[in-house]
Amino acid sequence: MEELKRPGERVDDLEIRGRKILQSPGRFCFGMDAVLLSAFARVGKKERALDLGTGTGILPILLEAKYSGDFYAGLEIQEESAQMARRSVKLNGLEEKIHIITGDIKEAASIFGAASFEVITVNPPYMIGGHGLKNDREALYVARHEALCTIDDVLRESSVILKSRGRFYMVHRPFRLPELLTKMCRYGLEPKRMRLVCPYVDKEPNLVLIEGRKGGKPRMKVEPPLIVYEKDGSYTDELNALYGRQTGR
Amino acid sequence: MEELKRPGERVDDLEIRGRKILQSPGRFCFGMDAVLLSAFARVGKKERALDLGTGTGILPILLEAKYSGDFYAGLEIQEESAQMARRSVKLNGLEEKIHIITGDIKEAASIFGAASFEVITVNPPYMIGGHGLKNDREALYVARHEALCTIDDVLRESSVILKSRGRFYMVHRPFRLPELLTKMCRYGLEPKRMRLVCPYVDKEPNLVLIEGRKGGKPRMKVEPPLIVYEKDGSYTDELNALYGRQTGR
Repeated sequence: MEELKRPGERVDDLEIRGRKILQSPGRFCFGMDAVLLSAFARVGKKERALDLGTGTGILPILLEAKYSGDFYAGLEIQEESAQMARRSVKLNGLEEKIHIITGDIKEAASIFGAASFEVITVNPPYMIGGHGLKNDREALYVARHEALCTIDDVLRESSVILKSRGRFYMVHRPFRLPELLTKMCRYGLEPKRMRLVCPYVDKEPNLVLIEGRKGGKPRMKVEPPLIVYEKDGSYTDELNALYGRQTGR
Repeated sequence: MEELKRPGERVDDLEIRGRKILQSPGRFCFGMDAVLLSAFARVGKKERALDLGTGTGILPILLEAKYSGDFYAGLEIQEESAQMARRSVKLNGLEEKIHIITGDIKEAASIFGAASFEVITVNPPYMIGGHGLKNDREALYVARHEALCTIDDVLRESSVILKSRGRFYMVHRPFRLPELLTKMCRYGLEPKRMRLVCPYVDKEPNLVLIEGRKGGKPRMKVEPPLIVYEKDGSYTDELNALYGRQTGR
């Protein structure tokens, strides 16, 4: 294991089927949003799933651990991140089942081809704008701002890459919901399922999980809100279950 | 009071500032959605508010009781309902402040004129379609199905009637959210605030409250879910407060 770890990186246990991941605290570490998205998504038998902007590779690694899909791919524009994700895949001995590809979301359809995946996941940058901006911590900046790709890029490419009736899973910020739903409809990824994530039951949601279906008919199922913390600050039973830490009850 | 009540009608106490309303159980009685919408909306001093498809007149009567607006209007296509609503207004001695107009939502902009209101409320039919369909209980059918007007009609007319920066408040079903938000954007009523209503904390929401702003900038505030019942089936404190029945705590 040690020969896959580079200076400044650490190995984290994902607490599911012994899976591990390399992270670089100075660059970008995955958050709860990735874990929630992996639980909200579903990859069926013989299905192929692509994660756009995979970063550390957390989504393909979690999805492979949770579901019985055939093949998982992750696309990452930053070569340094892609290499670390590849080493995490190797750390888990999953080189056959998970491929990390270096490339640009804006060119994803030409990289993968039309109708090549049943499932797409994406945990895109939440913040609008920032084209061409630079930052001391560029990897972090790119992960959080739409510097290198916009929501339009994500939806346009996904619409081409997904097979007919294919499923698109995204986590994003609720304040952008009108734009997200409008544009999903526009690109033919009909919103079919949505869930708001609230830190506490009486607090505003800070994340939204959305499932779209290529060529789906209009009618969206809105699920009960996902509450993260109990009033005393401990995780709710549902969150514990998502993280694989069952409570004693 | 009795001379305003017709056979088959009953007088209900609204439990706010002594306000009463006539209802006709054989036709259509207002529901919790109207009460929730009246609490979600806001009418400021010197503002004028219009309720589209007012039915019994419940929205103007509740809004007048709760807020300090200058003037309230209700538009209702069914003459029999409009007349009952007018009698309810009279029952409360509010003929100066609340006007009920008989007319079609599809012609609302030409009835009221452009930029004539600061606030619009609407509790539209939730079900799609049904053009020209008839029913033994037509008043009920028209209130529940888009038989006489569609969401496009509501939004198009509202967009004309509202002043610049005017506020549009709607209650609807969550399953139509993608269409509602998309079309609000299309008609220039930018969604600015949204709240899901869940019967219980762990149940799917069955209503959604949305505020739009004419000419607003994109960015929507999603509020904490509104929970109606505690686990034991009693109203939550928030619901009791909405209904004016404070709990003993």
